[in-house]
Amino acid sequence: MRNSFKRIPNHIGVIPDGNRRWAVERGMKKGDGYYHGIDPGFQLYELCKELGVKELTLYGFTTDNTKRPAEQKEAFQKACVEAVMDLTRRDANLLVVGNTKSPSFPKELLPFTERVRFGDGTINVNFLVNYGWEWDLNHKGGMASRDISRMDLIIRWGGRRRLSGFLPVQSVYADIYVLDELWPDFLPEQFYKALDWYQDQDITLGG
Amino acid sequence: MRNSFKRIPNHIGVIPDGNRRWAVERGMKKGDGYYHGIDPGFQLYELCKELGVKELTLYGFTTDNTKRPAEQKEAFQKACVEAVMDLTRRDANLLVVGNTKSPSFPKELLPFTERVRFGDGTINVNFLVNYGWEWDLNHKGGMASRDISRMDLIIRWGGRRRLSGFLPVQSVYADIYVLDELWPDFLPEQFYKALDWYQDQDITLGG
Repeated sequence: MRNSFKRIPNHIGVIPDGNRRWAVERGMKKGDGYYHGIDPGFQLYELCKELGVKELTLYGFTTDNTKRPAEQKEAFQKACVEAVMDLTRRDANLLVVGNTKSPSFPKELLPFTERVRFGDGTINVNFLVNYGWEWDLNHKGGMASRDISRMDLIIRWGGRRRLSGFLPVQSVYADIYVLDELWPDFLPEQFYKALDWYQDQDITLGG
Repeated sequence: MRNSFKRIPNHIGVIPDGNRRWAVERGMKKGDGYYHGIDPGFQLYELCKELGVKELTLYGFTTDNTKRPAEQKEAFQKACVEAVMDLTRRDANLLVVGNTKSPSFPKELLPFTERVRFGDGTINVNFLVNYGWEWDLNHKGGMASRDISRMDLIIRWGGRRRLSGFLPVQSVYADIYVLDELWPDFLPEQFYKALDWYQDQDITLGG
């Protein structure tokens, strides 16, 4: 692992895009891509932990996404459940944020909608599952994502240069780095490239 | 003018960054850069109008920015007032959005905090003046920027890959294009480059 970074973001947000394009490129069904997005998430999680990143937020799936065909919807729901379950066997302060009142929210993840500590809990991991930005902002009693802190760096895989509704408030000052590689093709070098770029960004928080 | 674009964004947001760096590069005082950012705005406005863009939003200055030294603050306030006044002599449905209750809001712009039509009003022009994203979202009676529509394309000059608090809700699905050139060095070619790139972006609105 590289550990030569002089500046490590406290909180990294990840938009793991490109699963469906990756599957199609391989002659697979679109929905088959999500399964291949699980392991990259753990590779990234381990790197973050080793580098001392304090908080990691993963964009699982959104209420917008649930309008996709059933086969895809079931595939990304299953991938999220599997990822969260695997995380409970590692070290994390885990929080799942999403609209639990909709049938699209996987019931298996209900126990994690309050932050739960697993292992030594050295890193906060937030998972957005059946998340919607409007749902978040218009939540009764304050933002639904209020326990997620401001993000310093957002890394998006899959080439699109947009936020796609990812935590509008926590992303206001984030530096945004886009990688063209599709998420299932994750390599540590891609992550390091984003961190290298981040070294030279000034932080002004809008000032 | 080029008019070969098959797809024109309805609403373009502009972050005109780099005025201070531009001034410093020329041995000028930081605040002197803002004056040189006015004419580029009108060049861009004319191009948008000719291309049939329906709405254009310019990020003037923010409540965060007002913490800068007085010389800079006065300079960007003056530049915003001058830009808006010039616009009243052109064609626009003009709306200024910002916190009018703070002394940092230029009083000359109060008449434009409700949308006003000038000329043939073929384009909505929104100017954010003393704008704050928290102020916007927590505004009593709904978002302060509720009369500004969702943005399709955000173009940022000056190389920073971030939103810096620019309309968090209207930017959720926007494609974001960053140009390394500093704003006072604006050239039509830079705008066309952003539009060329936009041609090939798929629009999913998060779906």
